[in-house]
Amino acid sequence: MTLSRWSLHASVCVMVPSASDIDAAAARISPHVRHTPVLHLAGGDLGLGHAVTLKLELLQHAGSFKPRGAFNRILAAREAGELPAAGVIAASGGNHGAAVAYAARALGLTAEIFVPELTPPAKRARIESFSARLVRTGATYAEALEASRARRAETGAMEVHAYDHPMVLAGQGTTAREFEQDAPELTHVLVATGGGGLIGGMAAWYAGRVKVVSVEPAACPALHDALAAGRPVPSPVGGVAADSLGARQVGALMFPIAATYVGEAVLIADDAIRAAQRLLWDRLRLIAEPGGATALAALLCGAWSPPEGARVGVLVCGSNADPATVVS
Amino acid sequence: MTLSRWSLHASVCVMVPSASDIDAAAARISPHVRHTPVLHLAGGDLGLGHAVTLKLELLQHAGSFKPRGAFNRILAAREAGELPAAGVIAASGGNHGAAVAYAARALGLTAEIFVPELTPPAKRARIESFSARLVRTGATYAEALEASRARRAETGAMEVHAYDHPMVLAGQGTTAREFEQDAPELTHVLVATGGGGLIGGMAAWYAGRVKVVSVEPAACPALHDALAAGRPVPSPVGGVAADSLGARQVGALMFPIAATYVGEAVLIADDAIRAAQRLLWDRLRLIAEPGGATALAALLCGAWSPPEGARVGVLVCGSNADPATVVS
Repeated sequence: MTLSRWSLHASVCVMVPSASDIDAAAARISPHVRHTPVLHLAGGDLGLGHAVTLKLELLQHAGSFKPRGAFNRILAAREAGELPAAGVIAASGGNHGAAVAYAARALGLTAEIFVPELTPPAKRARIESFSARLVRTGATYAEALEASRARRAETGAMEVHAYDHPMVLAGQGTTAREFEQDAPELTHVLVATGGGGLIGGMAAWYAGRVKVVSVEPAACPALHDALAAGRPVPSPVGGVAADSLGARQVGALMFPIAATYVGEAVLIADDAIRAAQRLLWDRLRLIAEPGGATALAALLCGAWSPPEGARVGVLVCGSNADPATVVS
Repeated sequence: MTLSRWSLHASVCVMVPSASDIDAAAARISPHVRHTPVLHLAGGDLGLGHAVTLKLELLQHAGSFKPRGAFNRILAAREAGELPAAGVIAASGGNHGAAVAYAARALGLTAEIFVPELTPPAKRARIESFSARLVRTGATYAEALEASRARRAETGAMEVHAYDHPMVLAGQGTTAREFEQDAPELTHVLVATGGGGLIGGMAAWYAGRVKVVSVEPAACPALHDALAAGRPVPSPVGGVAADSLGARQVGALMFPIAATYVGEAVLIADDAIRAAQRLLWDRLRLIAEPGGATALAALLCGAWSPPEGARVGVLVCGSNADPATVVS
């Protein structure tokens, strides 16, 4: 990817994936990812007073949206002849690691995945099921990332960053491209934010045509805090969704996109996330992990309400949970 | 519904829901049921050598396709002024009972649901969660049906039959109507058969345009046996899917439809059903009950293979299982 393929935005020089970057990503990854379905729910369904359209991205390979960015990053490097013999390396709370492991196996590459202690057993098992070498180290994602970088200095493997890379952002942006294709009527889309690769890519695609609303657990408020501070800042990492939304701070690349296009950054309680998981099972028979249910939780608990006339979409983005933690 | 709205078929007088019956059903029930999504899976996905399109009917209200027939039956009776004050009564292995209970609550009616001993706790809880009166009696569905008819003679409630009623067939036929709308390219559709309301309604809709393949557990071979005998005959009821596919014999109304339009009736082992449930979780993060995974199981275990050039669809029709029975 060259600079000329990125837009100059506003009065500062900002790299934002353009529509054509995201189109290119979609073409690149389409043989490898699923076009996930949308489900239109009528007003009254889920106990809401208005219609809502879910994109069921939790049905993606490896159980989350993450293969979009992973495949785009790896395939673009392969196209450019930049893939080292040592393969790929990534740090992750779990979902990105599973996606990189899945992509590496599909493409015949070696993968090493670094996860922190808080990564749940279901996600560790998922990563190992895709034949990657798993390393468990550090308390949070940020520490696992540091360790993965030390290892990378030894092996020469290519880092597939969980969110802060242009190709990863463009790959995640394909989620919005599909959502707009299947639900062009939407005016607002709610997305859970961790390091911000997903919401950054999606907001870059929508580019203001649709209002993108960020939802974070109050225990992991990285984008909320960044928008308040005017730049990415370190935030606490905790609560039930820390394994998927627990980046210490949002990515440098996504921040200017969010500052421009993400109007609201809502915080919600862990209890609301658990309740949304339970309702997704009771009413829809879907098993979502805490991070996967977080965006919907903001609607269900009333932390965010649509303005009059809004047509609301919600991304349900991950399902790597032990069902026993959802259905008790 | 009048006889004139049904087709005269072949050389004998057979009542088959016509396309306009199913159109009418779709219009009648559309405010109450979900248009469930399809998921296109590429060749190679799920380990198959060919593409397959799933219709995720397990995301329907109450966890199965059953509300389609239940709403159509009840709403048509209400339109005709034939709903008794005593409300509705039904016998069921569980899913139909949950659907009738759900519909009755939505429409402000009283419901009594009779289930046999083999109905699992998850389904009993589901029925009671919709405020119906639950009666557990008899070893199988057929005995629960008998008991429900004795009770109906006392109360005067309206029976909502699980499959053998024209309005139920027409309601279930809306599943095929949606599937054709969303995946018009299909040449073959695999459907699990119990009493045959679903496959009967779907085959009536497709009317030979698409080849409808029946899949049953070898332990519940009611349609397989009926087609061999040339009429509905009593069959064994057993195995892992008995609670959803365990009718003792197929319906009188569906049989001539199946005899005309269902070319193949495949039998599969219970092990193949369990393996399909497990794979739906591992690869798609879907929890399907045994009956819900049965149609897909026929593809996965090789009991049915598509002919050259076929475009295959599979209905995933129910999800009322305790996830702990799927994910071990």
